[in-house]
Amino acid sequence: MYNTLFSNIAKHVTLTKEEMEAIQHHVQYKHVRKNETLLEEGAYCRHLYFVVKGCLRLFAYDGHHETTVLFAPENWWMSDIESFTHNKPSIFCIEALEDAELISIEYQDWQRLMEKVPKVERFFRILFQHAFALYQRRMNLILSKDARERYAWFGKQYPKLELRIAQKYIASYLGITTVFLSNIRKKG
Amino acid sequence: MYNTLFSNIAKHVTLTKEEMEAIQHHVQYKHVRKNETLLEEGAYCRHLYFVVKGCLRLFAYDGHHETTVLFAPENWWMSDIESFTHNKPSIFCIEALEDAELISIEYQDWQRLMEKVPKVERFFRILFQHAFALYQRRMNLILSKDARERYAWFGKQYPKLELRIAQKYIASYLGITTVFLSNIRKKG
Repeated sequence: MYNTLFSNIAKHVTLTKEEMEAIQHHVQYKHVRKNETLLEEGAYCRHLYFVVKGCLRLFAYDGHHETTVLFAPENWWMSDIESFTHNKPSIFCIEALEDAELISIEYQDWQRLMEKVPKVERFFRILFQHAFALYQRRMNLILSKDARERYAWFGKQYPKLELRIAQKYIASYLGITTVFLSNIRKKG
Repeated sequence: MYNTLFSNIAKHVTLTKEEMEAIQHHVQYKHVRKNETLLEEGAYCRHLYFVVKGCLRLFAYDGHHETTVLFAPENWWMSDIESFTHNKPSIFCIEALEDAELISIEYQDWQRLMEKVPKVERFFRILFQHAFALYQRRMNLILSKDARERYAWFGKQYPKLELRIAQKYIASYLGITTVFLSNIRKKG
């Protein structure tokens, strides 16, 4: 299980055996069931999650409809990063869309780990840099592209995820209606 | 001029005199005129910019209309981060909306500087983390909030910037029409 995490980190930095042990010492394993809530709106996001198996979803609910901001299938990281790093109540919820195996890290442990293993800080600099790049592109997509292009991008971003999760979640991620999404998928 | 940069970095890390000198050694000062293009679509984004004075804009143009992805007034950082870090042709343009004073850093210098001064890597980890948090919130805003709420958020995010730049740019950042934005502003 930790091997999946180490492989993910190894994409950007090369860890020694001692550094891997230090990481393992600061994280926890967590198993959650489908539909389980990991973060409720108004609560504090205390964890940064790495998904070993399954899929998490970060979304907002305004009393009428849900807006999906992020999916995290295998090998993705998940958190309400503002709530997590600024100790602020979250405006988002996090739920498991499938039974999931997670590795989680608490804020203080995360800080200590980055102090102790500078390569971990490098890894997160690169991870957040990628997240920033991803959102720059997605922002352009949502503001200027039609539903068909948005859906094509989703397929590239999350290969085969559409086979695992409900259409309504994908529609709420792309800013289109479920009916519209269904039509696009039928037409191929 | 460098003091503005050092104050910005000091928000997150405390630099020694030697570290400040190392930073100064790796960056360049640049003055650009209003309407000057710093990055053209299809070109490689070679710099990460810090804005000392003036305002930059990152946008996409699809042949019909422009989509503004980011404004960078004083104390903001600007780059097409994917093009800059992956050496890929950019899908965006960067232009100066006002005469501007910038501090720029090239990719290799940026890498060397982070190797030499780990606090600089920490600074960028935190900077990208903030950018990620900002886009998570903006994504929710664009996907689920009406024009009035989007405009209110813009005012908080970029205080007084609306007095300095054309309405069409703000409208293209918020995903609303210029006419609609004009109506909101009139109604106060």
